Amino acid sequence: MSQDEFTIIERYFASIAQDSDNVVMGPGDDCAVLHVPSGHELCVTTDTLNESVHFPENCPAAVVAQRTLAANLSDLAAMGATPHSFLLAMTLPHADEDWLCEFSKVLAEGMRQYDVPLVGGNLSRGAMSLTITANGIVPVGGAITRSGAQPGDGIYVSGYIGDAGAGLERYQRDPSARDYLIERYINPTPRVELGQMLRDVATAMIDVSDGLVADLTHLCESSKAGAELELRDVPLSEEFVEALDDVKVALSSGDDYELCFTSSADDGTIERIKQESGVNLTRIGRIIENPKLDVFDNGKLIVLDQEGYLHFE
Amino acid sequence: MSQDEFTIIERYFASIAQDSDNVVMGPGDDCAVLHVPSGHELCVTTDTLNESVHFPENCPAAVVAQRTLAANLSDLAAMGATPHSFLLAMTLPHADEDWLCEFSKVLAEGMRQYDVPLVGGNLSRGAMSLTITANGIVPVGGAITRSGAQPGDGIYVSGYIGDAGAGLERYQRDPSARDYLIERYINPTPRVELGQMLRDVATAMIDVSDGLVADLTHLCESSKAGAELELRDVPLSEEFVEALDDVKVALSSGDDYELCFTSSADDGTIERIKQESGVNLTRIGRIIENPKLDVFDNGKLIVLDQEGYLHFE
Repeated sequence: MSQDEFTIIERYFASIAQDSDNVVMGPGDDCAVLHVPSGHELCVTTDTLNESVHFPENCPAAVVAQRTLAANLSDLAAMGATPHSFLLAMTLPHADEDWLCEFSKVLAEGMRQYDVPLVGGNLSRGAMSLTITANGIVPVGGAITRSGAQPGDGIYVSGYIGDAGAGLERYQRDPSARDYLIERYINPTPRVELGQMLRDVATAMIDVSDGLVADLTHLCESSKAGAELELRDVPLSEEFVEALDDVKVALSSGDDYELCFTSSADDGTIERIKQESGVNLTRIGRIIENPKLDVFDNGKLIVLDQEGYLHFE
Repeated sequence: MSQDEFTIIERYFASIAQDSDNVVMGPGDDCAVLHVPSGHELCVTTDTLNESVHFPENCPAAVVAQRTLAANLSDLAAMGATPHSFLLAMTLPHADEDWLCEFSKVLAEGMRQYDVPLVGGNLSRGAMSLTITANGIVPVGGAITRSGAQPGDGIYVSGYIGDAGAGLERYQRDPSARDYLIERYINPTPRVELGQMLRDVATAMIDVSDGLVADLTHLCESSKAGAELELRDVPLSEEFVEALDDVKVALSSGDDYELCFTSSADDGTIERIKQESGVNLTRIGRIIENPKLDVFDNGKLIVLDQEGYLHFE
């Protein structure tokens, strides 16, 4: 990009800098300098969203900003981490001022909402691609990994499953339409607070980004265990049921950014967290010793033809 | 990418994982979990290299790996930071096994050389683009910023200036040729050890990635100061002189990844660091109060027509 284009772009991002006790020095030098509170460990994740792959061509800047930030914050949430800071590497074909203005405005809203400052970045020319690297903190030893599930643990999911997938289909048909399902796709809610509340409760956790079956499979593989899943217990929104009414589609549908976790806590504990977080929590099955994923439809074992399932064993 | 392609790619990167006291948990979960030693701050930087922009089309995997890692480690070096860990977000048009094998092999060599473990990553499909986010550590308050230069400080550069730019020109003419200048472009040396040795010596520092004039200008702007630069003192390699013999080209030529720093230390201190680091260090000018960049040719003020210079005031 030309020096002028860089100046334009940097102006949009300099204006959204926000203070934080964790930031000793923000963007503008060779590195940012960060403070990690004593007694804490750092959780780090990086995620790329590319045009035409992770979001449609000519996707509004607001949607790109929301989805890119959410994808990374959701990974922090899945560790039970508190957002600390993030870096943004943007590759853009050209500097479109309207696009940049909207993008930085919506990004700044997300930064305020989740109290996570932008501490560094990079701008380059090329096919549109956005990579965020997000930092979170947990008390030492407090990160919730995928590998701690034990036979007998209950399996839970937050929110409703399948909404974002159904929303994407609608959005692709009519990018200007807006309804509940489309909102769940274009502006997903990373379960940042819920993740932290589950630190002493969940034995294992993952976020649902690839689809419930695929992500639960990852969790089981890491935990060297299996799972029994009851289809009828998978929480579906009224809007999803009205639009599709097919739980099997929901199982393989991605982009929900809900949390799937395992726990040996009693019903009262889960209910308390549900009340305190304001997020729906549903028990959908249990962890078993045998490293396979058995899916039941009203108690009857069924075979799924979804890719995630076939790749399990 | 298909599940199979992901499996192939992940195999190449799982094999190059290395242990580190700083890594509580490496790749494979929603986040990596890192230990930051007490009494230290974290320096973070992110840098993207795109095909056809930062490296030529069909560039060998070894060159892409070396240049991407070097660009980020050089930013750590410019803060005086010790490499801690890094994350790699790769966008590839397809999974070419030969390319991935070579890329991961050469990346692993760099990881061992600089003792910096890969702790996380992301793989996606699209035009070739690599984003590394690198973490380094410094003792609290020990980071060398761009903003500490004081009038009267000497200005120094490491190594030789212009080699990588001259090497790039040769490399573009004949990608199979190899000589000293081309090596300086395809396999630059981030000055990681030197950067750490300068922690108590440099008042300000930046790495030379955009070109000496442009980067020194950034340093001066951050320090709210100016600089006098003596052209004849800019260190040029014999090979550069033989190929081009034009110091003005060297001034605006990027990709050297040398360090440019300011210091009020005496000649003996600089000489000692030069001996201990084994890296050439040359005084090329001094910081002045007036916020401008005066370039002298054998003591005579000259006007440069390079873009970096014109953008200074």
